[in-house]
Amino acid sequence: MPVNLHVPARDSLRPVPGVAIGTTMAGIRKANRRDVLVLRLPAGATAAGVFTTNRFCAAPVRVCREHLARSAGAIRALVVNTGCANAGTGAAGLENARRSCDEVARLVGCAPEQVLPFSTGVILEHLPMDRLLPGIGAAVSGLGASDWLDAAEAIMTTDTLPKGASREVEVGGRRVVVTGIAKGSGMIRPNMATMLGYIATDAALPQPLLERWVRDAADVSFNRVTVDGDTSTNDSLVLLASGASGVAIDDDAAPGAAALKAAITEVAQQLAQALARDGEGATKFITIEVERAASGVEAAAVAYAIAHSPLVKTAFFASDPNLGRILAAVGYAGIADLDVDRVDLYLDDVHVATRGGRHPAYREEDGQRVMKQAEIRIRVVLGRGDASTTVWTCDLSHDYVSINADYRS
Amino acid sequence: MPVNLHVPARDSLRPVPGVAIGTTMAGIRKANRRDVLVLRLPAGATAAGVFTTNRFCAAPVRVCREHLARSAGAIRALVVNTGCANAGTGAAGLENARRSCDEVARLVGCAPEQVLPFSTGVILEHLPMDRLLPGIGAAVSGLGASDWLDAAEAIMTTDTLPKGASREVEVGGRRVVVTGIAKGSGMIRPNMATMLGYIATDAALPQPLLERWVRDAADVSFNRVTVDGDTSTNDSLVLLASGASGVAIDDDAAPGAAALKAAITEVAQQLAQALARDGEGATKFITIEVERAASGVEAAAVAYAIAHSPLVKTAFFASDPNLGRILAAVGYAGIADLDVDRVDLYLDDVHVATRGGRHPAYREEDGQRVMKQAEIRIRVVLGRGDASTTVWTCDLSHDYVSINADYRS
Repeated sequence: MPVNLHVPARDSLRPVPGVAIGTTMAGIRKANRRDVLVLRLPAGATAAGVFTTNRFCAAPVRVCREHLARSAGAIRALVVNTGCANAGTGAAGLENARRSCDEVARLVGCAPEQVLPFSTGVILEHLPMDRLLPGIGAAVSGLGASDWLDAAEAIMTTDTLPKGASREVEVGGRRVVVTGIAKGSGMIRPNMATMLGYIATDAALPQPLLERWVRDAADVSFNRVTVDGDTSTNDSLVLLASGASGVAIDDDAAPGAAALKAAITEVAQQLAQALARDGEGATKFITIEVERAASGVEAAAVAYAIAHSPLVKTAFFASDPNLGRILAAVGYAGIADLDVDRVDLYLDDVHVATRGGRHPAYREEDGQRVMKQAEIRIRVVLGRGDASTTVWTCDLSHDYVSINADYRS
Repeated sequence: MPVNLHVPARDSLRPVPGVAIGTTMAGIRKANRRDVLVLRLPAGATAAGVFTTNRFCAAPVRVCREHLARSAGAIRALVVNTGCANAGTGAAGLENARRSCDEVARLVGCAPEQVLPFSTGVILEHLPMDRLLPGIGAAVSGLGASDWLDAAEAIMTTDTLPKGASREVEVGGRRVVVTGIAKGSGMIRPNMATMLGYIATDAALPQPLLERWVRDAADVSFNRVTVDGDTSTNDSLVLLASGASGVAIDDDAAPGAAALKAAITEVAQQLAQALARDGEGATKFITIEVERAASGVEAAAVAYAIAHSPLVKTAFFASDPNLGRILAAVGYAGIADLDVDRVDLYLDDVHVATRGGRHPAYREEDGQRVMKQAEIRIRVVLGRGDASTTVWTCDLSHDYVSINADYRS
């Protein structure tokens, strides 16, 4: 059950002029579900991405990196399949990813290096090319109206619903659109990127600016969300700029640059939070704020220690204010010289702990009240410096175990 | 359901001459269960310990460190309670730990600094001194025969059964006993020590040797087991040498030293494995061997990445050979220059992956056969150097969630 998350209304996901979308049901893994997506970009569009830091990265991630290095500024299409991650597949996996690009290139009329491939699903299995190649053909045949809800559906795995978000900004009297989609529910602890996320705008953005912006957006969105601490082999976030609006933004100082970057960041954050809201088995959406850390790295270490603790996560599932588990996680987060007497812990507005122990005014019923909410904010104040961070996560429920015990069956 | 673990036969846990044991039911948290343990040592006995690295360490851990520093070589008693961890309790918690020592000291006739206190149970709650102090009195009154099974029962929290092990070695024609007990089932990722473990011998061992041996034993036992990755606030392992056998071993080169150290290590390993076998909700006991790593630190990082992955652990629970999840964990373990083409993965005798992908001869049914076993060995060969390590863990089941969602109720 996703936490305060709903299927986006179809017309709330604004088409991005210049970006054509095609999807199909190719039966990659299951029948009667969209599982192949093709995105076509106009000549002159730019694309930039950030990818998983997992050393066992999937074949398509390796091919994406190659193609972006060779064809930066000239990417013409993206192809995505769900149902099979094409990871842990060795040389044959690379060959299959390249063949997918060849097929898209042949059908849309560009070079294979101008196509970016993506896969998501089960690891250690080979792509069923006999079904994928015809699927690509069908998706390309259907290329047309920019229907992002179909696109969001076509990339789902264990997601319970499609995830998308849109913003509009005015630049010099002209409207610019930002629309993004993402998928991911388990194996979520993106590190430089998410499972799969695509954000497109119809502004014209030069390649170096796009590359900077995608990194900046990832750092405050997909790189700050975790479900189970498992960094996927396939994490990819791509930012696309079609240029079709005619609005060109050449650098950060250009009129509209700040507003557009903010819109892109908001879309990225909304999508990243959606991953945690729809985290496998999630019943609670949890925001962890760590303040007054000595560094951003330290703040993140504490936030992730809390976010990954199975004991903290099961206590949230049970609405049980067994909050010593949070202090224990702070204590093992790796800060060797942490002075626990300077640490404060809050649950929403409730002051739980101070000076190394329970706050004298803390009452169990106040903790209980907050724990029962569907959305909970944990705030840890370390009293060491000026750095802070925010991480989003969810609880650990019986359904997480059920979903992951049954995922392949 | 513990995995291939049974209540030790009472007579299999050999008494350790010189060590007196007393237990009682003090109603610390629940009625009708042993929850206070006192161990009394003879004059001349030595004691050494290793403790949690958690910065939010419990009050009794702080007091243990103080007392060992002041009275090394002259410890006369240990007092342990279950039901309340006395962690996250600030200044009042320290005061309560000291009062427990005062009471034991008064009753057994020694200085408070010669008593080591230990607590385990819920964090962020204060010790109920009105029940603990009378309980200490009752346990001291009952001091007598060295009944280690009672002792093992008196320190349990969510453990489903008491854990103990014994060995005997012959030194110069004389028999020396080693007996140990431990508790721990959740919040298990000891770091320099375990939840609570006590190992005693009737050999006479000088303080410096004992301190070295307890560290060496912990490094290959309690520091190599994990249930949920949560390093407790109360982890403590103590090695006691009563000297009552009359066998004195002064250094590593002395006759019998190697045999005795091996016996101590075996007891420590058997107890550490028992923690994983009785891990909360465990249905499988998993041994993770990482070989040909560039360093021991690197080998441990890979082993723990696998051992802590909720996706790997749920796949084992389901007996589902979704083994790409293991490769994903290897890939995010933090080895920046890992060459995945040199990595091999085995499940018992089944060669699953090689050269960055699925082994050509690997068949799903072979993986399935091993996954169905109650005891499974994962072997990862990194192809980088000569270091290796072994880590023990268990799977992640519905019962883990149930136990930790209900722990306080």
